[in-house]
Amino acid sequence: MNMTLETVSTNKTHGGVQGVYKHRSVATGTEMTFSVFVPDHAEGAYLPVLTYLSGLTCTHANVTEKGEYRAACAKHGIIFVAPDTSPRGDEVPDDDAYDFGKGAGFYVNATEEPWAQHFQMRRYVEEELPALIQQNFPADMARQGIMGHSMGGHGALTISLRNPGRYRSTSAFAPIVAPLECPWGEKALTGYIGADKAAWREYDACALIEDGARLPDLLVDQGTADGFLEEQLKTHLLQKAVDAAGIPARIRMQEGYDHSYYFISTFMAEHVDWHAERMKG
Amino acid sequence: MNMTLETVSTNKTHGGVQGVYKHRSVATGTEMTFSVFVPDHAEGAYLPVLTYLSGLTCTHANVTEKGEYRAACAKHGIIFVAPDTSPRGDEVPDDDAYDFGKGAGFYVNATEEPWAQHFQMRRYVEEELPALIQQNFPADMARQGIMGHSMGGHGALTISLRNPGRYRSTSAFAPIVAPLECPWGEKALTGYIGADKAAWREYDACALIEDGARLPDLLVDQGTADGFLEEQLKTHLLQKAVDAAGIPARIRMQEGYDHSYYFISTFMAEHVDWHAERMKG
Repeated sequence: MNMTLETVSTNKTHGGVQGVYKHRSVATGTEMTFSVFVPDHAEGAYLPVLTYLSGLTCTHANVTEKGEYRAACAKHGIIFVAPDTSPRGDEVPDDDAYDFGKGAGFYVNATEEPWAQHFQMRRYVEEELPALIQQNFPADMARQGIMGHSMGGHGALTISLRNPGRYRSTSAFAPIVAPLECPWGEKALTGYIGADKAAWREYDACALIEDGARLPDLLVDQGTADGFLEEQLKTHLLQKAVDAAGIPARIRMQEGYDHSYYFISTFMAEHVDWHAERMKG
Repeated sequence: MNMTLETVSTNKTHGGVQGVYKHRSVATGTEMTFSVFVPDHAEGAYLPVLTYLSGLTCTHANVTEKGEYRAACAKHGIIFVAPDTSPRGDEVPDDDAYDFGKGAGFYVNATEEPWAQHFQMRRYVEEELPALIQQNFPADMARQGIMGHSMGGHGALTISLRNPGRYRSTSAFAPIVAPLECPWGEKALTGYIGADKAAWREYDACALIEDGARLPDLLVDQGTADGFLEEQLKTHLLQKAVDAAGIPARIRMQEGYDHSYYFISTFMAEHVDWHAERMKG
């Protein structure tokens, strides 16, 4: 695996360094860009790592600029990693829609053409990115947490559910909880994985739980004024699945909040606190 | 004065509402856009108002998205107002440079052509905007603070110095402290006000202090890695002016910080705390 990183930018902030980096990805066969915040820390220390997966249309930049995570990560001494949401570049196939193709990788390994060559975001986030982080940053990979927003909440939940024990903590803002049951999911999984719905179940948090996957706990915030709640997000299906499985999830319906970073930034510090508690020691 | 506001957007955030509004401005003769955060508050309460003036190239959006002020304003119950940095629109004259014309109003009342008709940002920020805020929001205008970044730090300092007693608190991030002594200032003031440097002194914080203007105190943060420090910002001139005048300013050189919102957001909560203390009761 090519571990060479190119530094796009670094800025001192909240006592640490917010960096943006790019590299040639083996998983996607493209250049990939991601951001990493490393808080101030003692020489030789290794810090827990919190990975944040973004939603449709986003790059690493949205949460990096608007997520308001740095104060909390500096307080707890947590590295914060934010990858892109799809492969990028002129060689990558695309779709005119905002919810398929570039900016909409859905954290799957595509098997259908023309997507299979580059849309390998599951492999990228599960394998390549953690190896890069371990190699290039003062990261204690035994203490990882994962979180995400919307499509990235789907990514965080499904990646954590498929890799028991890897993440000490899992949380999401307004996640897509059941791609099998919503238009965004049906479109993306049909396109990337094909028509056989049995193959979709490993990319559906509710189906994974129904099929036996477990997490020790889970934190989810969902705004009640989120325009995607009813048709796409369907938080109640996750509530039903965790209840049936006996997973002690904390799923909070937040009155009046929408789907934007104004919502995410409001609860970000609480999520980081919650991850920090589970990543200690 | 036309007090009709049009709401561009509102989002619930940090328990309050982040709004963006536009209106026909009498001062600039154009449409103007600004943002206001109103924290959660008791019915019938009137809250102190903190106005933030942005730097070159910015609109209201930069600090609204990247300033990380809402948590602190929510904690203290402070309204946060962020205007644009110049008139906008096809009818407004412009210059190809980033430091003159649109995005670079310098908080002056222009007297030179073709700028005089629209570039009346001093009048806009000093007179029209406060009246709009008072009329349309639960604002206690007896408790105001003002702050800004770079060109907006210049705006905050000069507006506060020219209006003794109006602002209970004044602070700045990386302000232009002496437009008379730097290329940005010379270019802008020559263009907007004309060649007579005597007329510039009311737009120069150091000159205003030399000429007798006073503030009870002052908070300034300046990054030592700020690429504009030496040629444009010249913080030491402000230190010299406040020392000579006996103004107990707290001017902090922040090691390794640059000119970006990564710097501003790091110290924003401390600035809001500092304003809150002075705007109490």
